[in-house]
Amino acid sequence: MKVLLTGASGFLGRHVAARLLADGFEVTGFDQNPGGAELETVIGDLTDATSMDNAVAGRDVVCHIGAIGDVYLAASDPALAASVNVLGTTNVAQAARKAGARVVYASTWEVYGAPQYEPMDEDHPCTPDHPYNITKLAGERMLLAADHLQGVPSLALRLGTAYGSGLRPNSVFRIFFDKARKREPITIQGDGSQSRQFTHADDIARAFSLACRSDLRGLVLNTVAEEPISVKQLAESVIARFPTDLVFGPARPGDVAPALVSSRRIEQLLGWRAEVSFEDGIDSLIESLPDPA
Amino acid sequence: MKVLLTGASGFLGRHVAARLLADGFEVTGFDQNPGGAELETVIGDLTDATSMDNAVAGRDVVCHIGAIGDVYLAASDPALAASVNVLGTTNVAQAARKAGARVVYASTWEVYGAPQYEPMDEDHPCTPDHPYNITKLAGERMLLAADHLQGVPSLALRLGTAYGSGLRPNSVFRIFFDKARKREPITIQGDGSQSRQFTHADDIARAFSLACRSDLRGLVLNTVAEEPISVKQLAESVIARFPTDLVFGPARPGDVAPALVSSRRIEQLLGWRAEVSFEDGIDSLIESLPDPA
Repeated sequence: MKVLLTGASGFLGRHVAARLLADGFEVTGFDQNPGGAELETVIGDLTDATSMDNAVAGRDVVCHIGAIGDVYLAASDPALAASVNVLGTTNVAQAARKAGARVVYASTWEVYGAPQYEPMDEDHPCTPDHPYNITKLAGERMLLAADHLQGVPSLALRLGTAYGSGLRPNSVFRIFFDKARKREPITIQGDGSQSRQFTHADDIARAFSLACRSDLRGLVLNTVAEEPISVKQLAESVIARFPTDLVFGPARPGDVAPALVSSRRIEQLLGWRAEVSFEDGIDSLIESLPDPA
Repeated sequence: MKVLLTGASGFLGRHVAARLLADGFEVTGFDQNPGGAELETVIGDLTDATSMDNAVAGRDVVCHIGAIGDVYLAASDPALAASVNVLGTTNVAQAARKAGARVVYASTWEVYGAPQYEPMDEDHPCTPDHPYNITKLAGERMLLAADHLQGVPSLALRLGTAYGSGLRPNSVFRIFFDKARKREPITIQGDGSQSRQFTHADDIARAFSLACRSDLRGLVLNTVAEEPISVKQLAESVIARFPTDLVFGPARPGDVAPALVSSRRIEQLLGWRAEVSFEDGIDSLIESLPDPA
């Protein structure tokens, strides 16, 4: 089965590429940046429909992970988020229509916005209010519209906040580790009670592999680890390994409030549940960290 | 008060321009196409951030009506709808931020999707599933995010299906009239029971004028005439004026199912309610029709 993987050179894309290759898929990457030597990667731009069409031609499945995934970048450049996340995803859907390909889309639990009940299942209303989650939801909906209006088989995975080796330097994990390893104090923005169901990139990669082989379509599926971890717990996990001080600062604007998400549906339909424990995930992350500056 | 009016040369834009000029606003248009001689119009593209910034500089308010408003065009070219309706609206919001301007946005009742209760007020969940209403809602949300994250005062009017002089030739009104005046049969797509709260463009124009003068922000307001009119009633109104035969054909895919919308909130907050009766609106439309081919 031939897979095009957008965002192949990014943090999550590299985990998904490794898993798909290990599971026997023929994988080609698509990214603005070259990836590792192990993956043939087409250099291209999601907002360029022609290069999308050319890259998708001849593939069976597109795993569409490429996005402006950094919420702070989306906030500072919302036009970029609109272009890449909405127009880019629309281009992927239309290229898949022309190629007769199926699409598996990396959506996010953040599309739900403020919780009206918890845990939030896939029927929970979506009221996103930030350029990142607004554009990710619009991309998801454009893809599902291509499914029901144009017959493009599409499945959206609403992913938990991902972590693992190769995380962006501005992620809370990297910030905490980079400080602690230099014995500088860790600053929690807010009171530290805000929690996330941090989901390991290897678990997410396995979900993409299952989704590629399934024929589920026209659906969204929460793909989130069960256990909520507070930012304070995360900081304490880091300090247990690299002892340093913990201080508290003001909350960052645009941070999404925590809310519990249920992944029962993907367990029922695809047999997926997260398997990497948080402490094991933290340990594997440490092994992958670059040497401290 | 200086107003930039996007989409000034289109059907709805021309009605809003006339009203704003009559109400004493200093109005400049912004459109891909030149408008009438009565309005100075900047020729530009909503997806070009620089031309947007230049056009908004020095204005107090942007009335943002420019969009891919034709649902059939949005369905056949979803990438165009994503570009113009999402990226374009994001560009408007960012240009307004730089200029310190306020934005009044032409949203649509179609953002609600399938009704969960009726009449639908502004708190009704939004589940759009078509490239037109998906992209209009995403634009609305990007604008409201610019309001609460970046301080751009923004108000969205969720408009009823607009009609009036200068309607597009592919609107159901124009199709019916053009057939009937040639004594050709009128074809209803579907059983004719589907209704719309058709809202006259002059009523909508008055809502924009009220919105420009108000300081309401961070809100969406349904702006829809009260009375639902079925397509069959519309056809009968046309036939009463130009007698011809009525036939029934298959429904068009992508047509939005009818649902009752409440405009109580805009009546309470802005004192607006629709005033043009459907029969008066039909008569004024007839006067404006071009000679039949």
